Amino acid sequence: MHTEEFKRLRQVRIVLVEPNHPGNIGAAARAMKNMGQAELLVVNPRRYPDPQADWRAAGALDVLDGARVVPDVATAIEDCHWVVGTSTRMRKIPWPVASPAAVAAQIAERPVDAKVAILFGREDNGLSNEELRLCHCHLQIPADPVYPSLNLAMAVQVVCYELFQLMGDAENVATTVQRGWDRPLATVAQTDAMLDHLEQVLLRRGFLNPENPGQTMTRLSRLFRRVQLDETEVQILRGVYKHLDEAVDSDPEP
Amino acid sequence: MHTEEFKRLRQVRIVLVEPNHPGNIGAAARAMKNMGQAELLVVNPRRYPDPQADWRAAGALDVLDGARVVPDVATAIEDCHWVVGTSTRMRKIPWPVASPAAVAAQIAERPVDAKVAILFGREDNGLSNEELRLCHCHLQIPADPVYPSLNLAMAVQVVCYELFQLMGDAENVATTVQRGWDRPLATVAQTDAMLDHLEQVLLRRGFLNPENPGQTMTRLSRLFRRVQLDETEVQILRGVYKHLDEAVDSDPEP
Repeated sequence: MHTEEFKRLRQVRIVLVEPNHPGNIGAAARAMKNMGQAELLVVNPRRYPDPQADWRAAGALDVLDGARVVPDVATAIEDCHWVVGTSTRMRKIPWPVASPAAVAAQIAERPVDAKVAILFGREDNGLSNEELRLCHCHLQIPADPVYPSLNLAMAVQVVCYELFQLMGDAENVATTVQRGWDRPLATVAQTDAMLDHLEQVLLRRGFLNPENPGQTMTRLSRLFRRVQLDETEVQILRGVYKHLDEAVDSDPEP
Repeated sequence: MHTEEFKRLRQVRIVLVEPNHPGNIGAAARAMKNMGQAELLVVNPRRYPDPQADWRAAGALDVLDGARVVPDVATAIEDCHWVVGTSTRMRKIPWPVASPAAVAAQIAERPVDAKVAILFGREDNGLSNEELRLCHCHLQIPADPVYPSLNLAMAVQVVCYELFQLMGDAENVATTVQRGWDRPLATVAQTDAMLDHLEQVLLRRGFLNPENPGQTMTRLSRLFRRVQLDETEVQILRGVYKHLDEAVDSDPEP
C-alpha cells in the first residue's frame, strides 16, 4: 500500500452529529483509538464534556480530549473532500450506498490529500434528510432486518474496524493476528514414522489383529494427518508409545 | 449457501465470561440481535439482572431475557463441538489463532450439527490461561498495537458482524462445498474425558511426574482440541489407552 493511501485510511474524520448520550461519545473515542483513528468531531452534543464520556473512553482519553465540538454539520465538513453519511433508512431519492468495507476501499483510492469525513447520526433519528444530502456517499452497515439499528458507538466500531482491516491487509503491517507457531512443523516423513511406531506397538500388544486390522489405523492416520503436528508433538507421542511399550516388556512374561 | 451453513452461522452461542459491568451484557445482546444472533450465555456475572443491562439492550430485551446464566465455563461449553476463545494476549504456547472473518469462515465449514461457542473474557483480564486452553481456536480482533483492548460488547459486535457478513455473502453464493463427516463429532465433555483418561494412564505408568508435570499434557490437550475429534476417534483413543494400561496390569509384578 502506498504511504498516501495508508495515511488517508488513518486520518479519517469521525463526526458524531448531535449525540444524546455522552457515554456514546466516550465509547466512540475508544473504538476509534483501538482501530488507529484519532480525529473526532462532535456536532452540538446534548451533554459534553461529561464523566460518562470519560469513563467509557477508558484508555482513549487523548482522543476524547482532542475532540473538537462544532455547532453544525456544515462546519464539521467544510474543509473535507469526500463525505460519507451513515444511514439505515431507505430514501426516496436513491443515493450511492456502500458497505463499510466498500467505503474503506473507496477511501484508500481517493486522490492524494483528500480529506474524508464519516458522519454518524443521532441515537434516535440518525441523520436528517438535509444532512444526508450533504454527503457524497451513504454507508449502510449490514444488519438483520428484524432489528437493524446499531448503537451509535457500535456503528463507529464497525466502520473503523473495516478501515483498520484495509490498512493492515494492504500494508502487511503486523496485525496482531499474525503469529508464528512455537515449534517447527512435522514433516510428512516424521508423521509417517510416528504412525508406523504406533501401529507396531498396537500390533505387538494385540490391540490390532494382523489378520483383520479393520479401519482403526486408517482412522488414527486421518486424525493425525489432519491436525498438522509439530515436531514436539511427534516426540511426545512417540515418547508415550515407547514408554507404554517398554512398561510391558520390562515385566516378565506370565 | 446451504441451509445448514446458514443455520450454523446464525446459531452460534455467545458466552460472556464473568462480566463486571451489566451494561456490557445488555450491549452485547443488542449487538447480537442486530447481527441475527440469539443465544447468549453469561458465566457467573458480577451484577445481573440489572437495569443497566436492560437499558443498553434497547430493542434486544428478548435476547437478554433468553440468556442463560451458568456457574462456570465448563458448563457453558460442555455440549459444544467447537469452542473459540477471544484473546489479546500472546501466550507461551501458541494456539491456532484466527481473525473474526476467518473464524466465521471456519464456522460455515464445520460439519452439520456442529455446535459452536465463542467465549469473551472479563473486561479487565480477559480469559484465563486455563479457559483459553479449553478452546479449539483463539480469536484475535485486529487492532492498533498502541491500544488493542476493545470494550467487551464492541468485541461481540465485531465478531457477530463478521458472522452476519458471511451469512449475507454466502446466501448469494450458489455453490459451497458441503463438508459432511462420517461420524458424529465429539463434544467438549467427551474430549475432556478422553484427555483425563490419557493423563491418568500416563501418571500411573510413570510417564508423567506428578511433582513436575511440565507442559506435556498442555501440548497433548492443544493437539487433540485443535483437530476436532469425532466420537469414533475418541473411542479408539480410549480403547488404546485402556488396552495398553491393562496389558501392564495383567502381567505379574516382577
